[in-house]
Amino acid sequence: MRVAFLGLGIMGSRMAARLAWEGFELTVWNRTAARAEELGASYPGVEVAASPQAAATDVDLVISMVVDGPQVESVLLGPGGAAESASQGTLFVDCSTIGPKAAVAIGARLEERGLRFLDAPVTGSSPKAADGTLTIMVGGERDDFERALPALEAMGRLVVHTGPTGHGQLVKVINNAVAATNTTVLGQALLVASRAGADLDAVVKVMGAGSGNSAMLELKAGPMRAHDYSTLFKLDHMLKDVRLCLEAADDAGAQFGFAALTERVLAAASELGYGDADFVALIEQLERASGSSLRA
Amino acid sequence: MRVAFLGLGIMGSRMAARLAWEGFELTVWNRTAARAEELGASYPGVEVAASPQAAATDVDLVISMVVDGPQVESVLLGPGGAAESASQGTLFVDCSTIGPKAAVAIGARLEERGLRFLDAPVTGSSPKAADGTLTIMVGGERDDFERALPALEAMGRLVVHTGPTGHGQLVKVINNAVAATNTTVLGQALLVASRAGADLDAVVKVMGAGSGNSAMLELKAGPMRAHDYSTLFKLDHMLKDVRLCLEAADDAGAQFGFAALTERVLAAASELGYGDADFVALIEQLERASGSSLRA
Repeated sequence: MRVAFLGLGIMGSRMAARLAWEGFELTVWNRTAARAEELGASYPGVEVAASPQAAATDVDLVISMVVDGPQVESVLLGPGGAAESASQGTLFVDCSTIGPKAAVAIGARLEERGLRFLDAPVTGSSPKAADGTLTIMVGGERDDFERALPALEAMGRLVVHTGPTGHGQLVKVINNAVAATNTTVLGQALLVASRAGADLDAVVKVMGAGSGNSAMLELKAGPMRAHDYSTLFKLDHMLKDVRLCLEAADDAGAQFGFAALTERVLAAASELGYGDADFVALIEQLERASGSSLRA
Repeated sequence: MRVAFLGLGIMGSRMAARLAWEGFELTVWNRTAARAEELGASYPGVEVAASPQAAATDVDLVISMVVDGPQVESVLLGPGGAAESASQGTLFVDCSTIGPKAAVAIGARLEERGLRFLDAPVTGSSPKAADGTLTIMVGGERDDFERALPALEAMGRLVVHTGPTGHGQLVKVINNAVAATNTTVLGQALLVASRAGADLDAVVKVMGAGSGNSAMLELKAGPMRAHDYSTLFKLDHMLKDVRLCLEAADDAGAQFGFAALTERVLAAASELGYGDADFVALIEQLERASGSSLRA
């Protein structure tokens, strides 16, 4: 199966490398050409293309992994975009996180041109991308899902068909809003504990052993207490995802009150200058708002 | 080691049985005598006392497991209470959840009478009490903690000395407030997903595999979706614990905004008549407030 891979950032470069490693015939493109050349040098079979349009010539699958909706639109549907060269029936799989609405719109435009589309955002940080153990949520038609499955399984450990177009995005942004909110709850809890003079090691140990446990406690309690924001997942990207979730809730006529509060915390932390830090830097805003510190 | 065990409810009866099973010499008392007689019948060495005062005669350790602060006060310090017969230096270990303030007050009154005190609330439901695999958080002096440790280890798998008197309570109520809040976040997320037409099986599967996971997702997503409120932990008890956490935060001059919102949800669910149901029944209030249902 011949695959075009568009977008070789922190996640995309590792996902493309997994495909190359698993023997897919790969043509890659990246806005900054140097990163594409690097991948081409590491995997002799990998071809480097000068544009999305060039990359998508004579392939079965076009995978994109960029930052947001406008970038996906530009890379797939803009001038020099992949849709200009892809042959009828080519399957486009977008792994970026762009929200349900944008995914549905882009899918519709591709389908008007006789192309197929799946939205397939991923969760998991760069080590999981490198290992091919991401979680991938896929929206679109089942036939298309099955066609893409071998490539998706080279990149992910849990690959789930979550519904029609846009529903990969929907599940992804709900998951991330829950993760961000659980992290904010954890931050508030640790600040209360600290202010009351509690032994934070004991608090974390007890919560981790029982009903207070969460993936975010396991991953983020340590960095939060150490104020270690070495980036795994940028705060501004998490803020974007939470906003996409609130937008999806709004479109459905639903409310997600706790996530709306989390959005305010993340937005304030971003304004404090932590947008490029890991989202655990939301503790800075919580400390500021509460007038106390975990550093105590 | 001779132990008096006061309070044989759902948790206490199982904890006392563990002590008997591990060979502690046990005298038990319960307000409803029949439950004490039952335990006496199952474990031939167990003596049944007619009052806390009678139970605490000639013992090394007095363990209490009742519902709230006033009950602890009555059983330990009231007329016919354990303090009336306990010899100087007897160690009192209260496993009830009563909040830091009540624990400190009761500890001080016992110490005035030459008695020792540990607050040692537990987490884990009745199956863990039966297995002796509870988590036990202990506040008080280290010497006393070490003296009580053999008995605590018969009842718990993770037994942590969390600080001075009241700090067992502090850690417990913070943990429970986080658990209740994570459950409320989960409920809101599932309602948004449902309203947006998402496949809830996929949502739960994806969250469980990654950053959205939590102990409450694992334990409560199923019962929440099924509206199954068979009690593991009564909603009114969870409401009490969240209020104790907010009170502890307030006493420390801290705020726990998310837990304060969770308190409102639990209180409203209790007013709807779900106080004796498992606290996952908070979904009833979320459904009511959102005008949508997971039953869809």
